[in-house]
Amino acid sequence: MTTELYPRERLARVREAAGRAGLGALLLTPGPDLRYVTGYDAMQLERLTCLVVPVSGEAFLVVPRLELPAARESPAGGLGVELVPWDETDDPFALVARRLPRGLEKVAVADRMWASMALRFRAALPGAEQVAAGTVMRELRMRKSAAEVAALLEAGAAIDRVHRRVPGYLRPGRTEREVARDIADAIIAEGHAVVDFVIVGSGPNGANPHAEPTDRVIHPGEPVVVDIGGTMPSGYCSDSTRNYCVGPAPDDYLAYYEVLREAQEASCQAVRPGVTPEEVDAAARDIIAAAGYGEHFFHRTGHGIGLESHEDPYIVAGNTEPLEPGMAFSVEPGIYPGAHGARIEDIVVCTETGFERMNLTVRELTIVQ
Amino acid sequence: MTTELYPRERLARVREAAGRAGLGALLLTPGPDLRYVTGYDAMQLERLTCLVVPVSGEAFLVVPRLELPAARESPAGGLGVELVPWDETDDPFALVARRLPRGLEKVAVADRMWASMALRFRAALPGAEQVAAGTVMRELRMRKSAAEVAALLEAGAAIDRVHRRVPGYLRPGRTEREVARDIADAIIAEGHAVVDFVIVGSGPNGANPHAEPTDRVIHPGEPVVVDIGGTMPSGYCSDSTRNYCVGPAPDDYLAYYEVLREAQEASCQAVRPGVTPEEVDAAARDIIAAAGYGEHFFHRTGHGIGLESHEDPYIVAGNTEPLEPGMAFSVEPGIYPGAHGARIEDIVVCTETGFERMNLTVRELTIVQ
Repeated sequence: MTTELYPRERLARVREAAGRAGLGALLLTPGPDLRYVTGYDAMQLERLTCLVVPVSGEAFLVVPRLELPAARESPAGGLGVELVPWDETDDPFALVARRLPRGLEKVAVADRMWASMALRFRAALPGAEQVAAGTVMRELRMRKSAAEVAALLEAGAAIDRVHRRVPGYLRPGRTEREVARDIADAIIAEGHAVVDFVIVGSGPNGANPHAEPTDRVIHPGEPVVVDIGGTMPSGYCSDSTRNYCVGPAPDDYLAYYEVLREAQEASCQAVRPGVTPEEVDAAARDIIAAAGYGEHFFHRTGHGIGLESHEDPYIVAGNTEPLEPGMAFSVEPGIYPGAHGARIEDIVVCTETGFERMNLTVRELTIVQ
Repeated sequence: MTTELYPRERLARVREAAGRAGLGALLLTPGPDLRYVTGYDAMQLERLTCLVVPVSGEAFLVVPRLELPAARESPAGGLGVELVPWDETDDPFALVARRLPRGLEKVAVADRMWASMALRFRAALPGAEQVAAGTVMRELRMRKSAAEVAALLEAGAAIDRVHRRVPGYLRPGRTEREVARDIADAIIAEGHAVVDFVIVGSGPNGANPHAEPTDRVIHPGEPVVVDIGGTMPSGYCSDSTRNYCVGPAPDDYLAYYEVLREAQEASCQAVRPGVTPEEVDAAARDIIAAAGYGEHFFHRTGHGIGLESHEDPYIVAGNTEPLEPGMAFSVEPGIYPGAHGARIEDIVVCTETGFERMNLTVRELTIVQ
């Protein structure tokens, strides 16, 4: 068993999976798929960088000559993959087409490739049907290795440390934006490389699951939803939501908060191999609906997480693909009546026998005095 | 003449341009094209947000129900465009297809749309040929309005203020990374919303045009290339390169720095309506080559700038599309012999009679004592 986060043999596994899927080649531009296969955290630019993985033949990495030093020093430079630089007046799409085997019937493009580039590849490879690389990559990326789970645990511990700091930032009279700025600084200070998002939803803003921090002043007795995440230097993401109140919370809030606690726990407890995402979703939803809050929980229960904050598997009605060990996702039901709202979110990983949480801070409402 | 940065009438102009290009509809997901048309700075997420602009019929904005409050409060909410929310278990691609007129022969997708989404649209609109929206959008976005030029000037002034701070950060014994961190903080402090890139290339790293800051310690007498940029709250980008030396610079460096100064000035002076980008490129390249440094200038002379750091027009051999008033781009020749390197970069805007610089700090080498 390898303990490497980006093992060298992954490229061979990706090629085999592409072959089984009937693909002639994979075309991976900078983004999570390229990083997954090579470890190379390349920037998405207007100049084409692309790992080309023919099912028959050697993989090669096309890079703008300006990026050659960075590519060579990156993990991709140590994979034994040929680096093929192109110059400012070359057509890199034609270059890829010339080096691919003739007559490919189907090629896959990275899910996050810019459409303009996918269209250039279509013109350069007019005989090949294009499909999304995700059809192959998702099967691999959904099942996290032990090293990937360790990376998610490290990310979870980092965002947990940020949540432990949050009571120090919340004071009546401060605005959401001020609190959000402190939290963003803490996300970096606690070890993330990038701040992905900071939601500080006070009072009615807490009832908007995707609220942007505003200049709204936080008042005593107002619940505050804090949903935060970042990307670690490893490439793996954190994401956790906790709920705070500056002083005593309203009674109606406390009533539904207990329902939410129970619902979130039930969804987590439902996680084990063979259970479907829609069953995990229903575990929380049924409890919330039975308590009379069904109409106030209007989003899916969770999303997969890894090299992207949001990836497969999605924990939503209609997803009947059974969970397997290594699958990692958020469990984050919410109740949003309007005057305020609450959401509790942990990242969990499906294990051989059940689940493991990546987030370990208290899930009770935190009263800030 | 409108002085608005995101004028309401832009949507109508985009629709007209799409009609002239023979398109049936434009599909604009979050990114610079959507922001240009609506002012809406939406996040690119796995849930589809898409402005649909049929050439015949009313435009509408498809948004995940979770994003409805943000969309409503955004500038897009004030355009009189119908907002069409979709729920977690809906298929938003099918929703778009149902609302579009039947039998469209050609639709354009935003250049930066994720390929996975473009492929979903292809499946939902099987009869329609897909092209890149850039073919229409670039014609509009390349020609900046007075308000856009004002936004670029504001961005230029902000990055100029950062460059004026740089001598305070450069001391022998500090690492590139330490200096880069101070610069990143200053980019925000001087009014940018986002740090786009910070290059601090000391000694031999200055000879790599796309060097990432490293732990390399800066030594006395070493030239340092500082190439920095960010995005302003307006959405418009800055980008400027200046050169510094901690103490006296080497003689061979001073010799080619003077050539570079002359070359950069010549390229700027070449800018006026009717001149081609390749002529602007050649103006610098010819001087550098005549002085014997031709092989050490191996990248294009510049790139357009606006809502993206890099956009049309590219100042490169082979681009023969004549400049017009309002076109904005970098002029940034470089000379990179290896032991060190230099690049001088200003953003310039083509005017009715010539050019205007957005960056006004001294272009001479700055000696830091």
